[in-house]
Amino acid sequence: MSEVKDKAMRAREASRVMAVASTNVKNNVLQSMADMLIKRKGDIVAANATDMDNARSNNMTIALQDRLRLDEARVYGMVDGLMIVKNLPDPIGELINGWVRPNGLKIRKQRVPIGVIGIIYEARPNVTVDAAGLCLKSGNVVLLRGSSSALNSNKVIIECLQEAALANGLPAEIVQLIEDTDRASVNELMTLNGYVDLLIPRGGAGLIQNVVKNATIPVIETGVGNCHVYVDAEADLVKAQAIAYNAKVQRPSVCNAAESLLVHADVAELFLPGILEMYKAAGVLIKGCEKTRIIDNSVEPATEQDYRTEFSDYIISVKIVDTVDEAIDHIYEYGTKHTEAIVTENITTANKFVDNTDAAAVIINASTRFTDGGEFGFGAEIGISTQKLHARGPMGLVELTTIKYIVEGNGQVRE
Amino acid sequence: MSEVKDKAMRAREASRVMAVASTNVKNNVLQSMADMLIKRKGDIVAANATDMDNARSNNMTIALQDRLRLDEARVYGMVDGLMIVKNLPDPIGELINGWVRPNGLKIRKQRVPIGVIGIIYEARPNVTVDAAGLCLKSGNVVLLRGSSSALNSNKVIIECLQEAALANGLPAEIVQLIEDTDRASVNELMTLNGYVDLLIPRGGAGLIQNVVKNATIPVIETGVGNCHVYVDAEADLVKAQAIAYNAKVQRPSVCNAAESLLVHADVAELFLPGILEMYKAAGVLIKGCEKTRIIDNSVEPATEQDYRTEFSDYIISVKIVDTVDEAIDHIYEYGTKHTEAIVTENITTANKFVDNTDAAAVIINASTRFTDGGEFGFGAEIGISTQKLHARGPMGLVELTTIKYIVEGNGQVRE
Repeated sequence: MSEVKDKAMRAREASRVMAVASTNVKNNVLQSMADMLIKRKGDIVAANATDMDNARSNNMTIALQDRLRLDEARVYGMVDGLMIVKNLPDPIGELINGWVRPNGLKIRKQRVPIGVIGIIYEARPNVTVDAAGLCLKSGNVVLLRGSSSALNSNKVIIECLQEAALANGLPAEIVQLIEDTDRASVNELMTLNGYVDLLIPRGGAGLIQNVVKNATIPVIETGVGNCHVYVDAEADLVKAQAIAYNAKVQRPSVCNAAESLLVHADVAELFLPGILEMYKAAGVLIKGCEKTRIIDNSVEPATEQDYRTEFSDYIISVKIVDTVDEAIDHIYEYGTKHTEAIVTENITTANKFVDNTDAAAVIINASTRFTDGGEFGFGAEIGISTQKLHARGPMGLVELTTIKYIVEGNGQVRE
Repeated sequence: MSEVKDKAMRAREASRVMAVASTNVKNNVLQSMADMLIKRKGDIVAANATDMDNARSNNMTIALQDRLRLDEARVYGMVDGLMIVKNLPDPIGELINGWVRPNGLKIRKQRVPIGVIGIIYEARPNVTVDAAGLCLKSGNVVLLRGSSSALNSNKVIIECLQEAALANGLPAEIVQLIEDTDRASVNELMTLNGYVDLLIPRGGAGLIQNVVKNATIPVIETGVGNCHVYVDAEADLVKAQAIAYNAKVQRPSVCNAAESLLVHADVAELFLPGILEMYKAAGVLIKGCEKTRIIDNSVEPATEQDYRTEFSDYIISVKIVDTVDEAIDHIYEYGTKHTEAIVTENITTANKFVDNTDAAAVIINASTRFTDGGEFGFGAEIGISTQKLHARGPMGLVELTTIKYIVEGNGQVRE
């Protein structure tokens, strides 16, 4: 039997124990995991050094090397993450609602774990701990398929997590690492219907699209965001400037950063020169429509493809629109339904934008960067869902659960 | 451009209108649809007669012919279904919850339509109306791919539904039929990411598995149910007899019918002879374990495969177990997580069964047949989800929706 199938079967078996683990036991496991990570921080950093040596030999990019690298501070960062999750309320057992039928049947809808969650991810070894913490707190078992580049780091981390499970009377198989980093192991994991209940890919667009296209088990798609900021004719331009700047520049590499600025023609001449100078000062490359280029002829022309692109970089497209409807239509055509923001003081315009824009988050008078589990107050997030099924937007513990109907009768049969 | 792609693009465009249609408009459309079906009932029955002629020429089974057949009474049945949906509360716009963040951001979580829902189904032309009614009431647009056997019926029905849309100022494309009944059109529909937001296959296991395995857009899997009734040592045997009989015999062809009876050894000799006689009198073929065959030597031996089989027929497997744990383990091994019932008067045993049985519905002292949208009080159902993502168990209008976060600020940016 392959490693993937074997571990998935063990995971499924362990999920029966995990599903009925008490909140106290789950919290104790998270605490033990944190303790073990601290105890073995030297081993973790040493294993990571091996991964880093290999990365350099393999000419990994500096950006990826930074994601791969662990030092003691980063180990403590993972520990802090576990403590945050430990302190979050346990979603399992929540009675969502309940009612009594005319025939006397009592129906309760209760929150239960999903079961076995597979995570497919890339270089970051901190995902190993973050994902495990969130999945376990929500009563699930987790099957981790990390990248070969982080294998040495991940192996030591998993030893810590499994030891913590055993120390609390739970099977080690509540958290497992698939060590086979061949591409075939991903393909196998994606088609293990009946063993794995949910797959969450975390990483670049290539990884996510591979899982979305090829998985036969349910997947939650995360991460693509071609987000817009629309500055309305009736915008407070002071707010607009702060928001447009923050949405692009504060952290351009993430999915909730803005990729495109839409400005109403009535305020374009007043608003654009200032924000464009600020962008330039921050090193942002600007690609604008023809009308934008009349206002600032140093701006590069924006192509159709630019409007479709999630730059994830210090680049922004700028377009002047004549109406809020044109902004809504542009977003419908080019947006990815992640986060769309409007800056306006007009309540009717704001409502029109909100009602007619289909996105996980529609934001009025604030930065797109707020679409985030932490900023929403979820305490932690496993990702931002960009699909409409099951979960949409930032996913916290609740999004890692499903429901069970409990129907209680007194001998009722159906007529 | 193919018919499927063309209609999907039109559907996506129509979904923008549908998403903001008021409850009044949606209810008016449903009423007009009902009126049109009545007005053209003669045309519908005539078109169906052509389908029935073809079905007989193609040697369609009698059971399938019955599903395909429409008479005036069945047209009125579809009309009644639309009226029920019209009278259900509109789920769209519901404020699920909302809170204010420390920085003053106001976050609201609101129920919105999914968008474009594709339904792939088999012979029953009533699905055309049922599915359209439920999808439209929940603000979605629907793309229907019925079978070639019902094409003539479906075409006339769709004319009625589209005429009703137009009569109420909505685009005809809120409900469309894919007339290309070639297998390739299903394959294309399953991979229209970006145009179709959700696929719900309705029909036999072959159809459903084809969609689950090959779709790249999100799917809700419905319909497979290998359901058990466990009669505990402390069961009220009068209730147990009624429940075990009803669960198997009342309608054996459906997914919430019982396929297997588990009986605690302590009550097997008392309970089994009576229920087995009742089954035999109803024409149920009994396949039992060795211990069952000692009690009744006319019972056929049950194979491993029998325990795995959803008979959907007058057949049941019977097994005697020594403990509730053995029942739980058997269900874990052979069940399909649809509906599992226990008959017991012991509250601790009942709770143990509920907590340790992973299923959409776990039923105490009532028939498995109650896992049903109508019986749950949903008014109507689009199917019974047998997956854990998004929806689990009977799916009503609420399960055809997703959410949107609306974040309102006053100029906030992220630090």
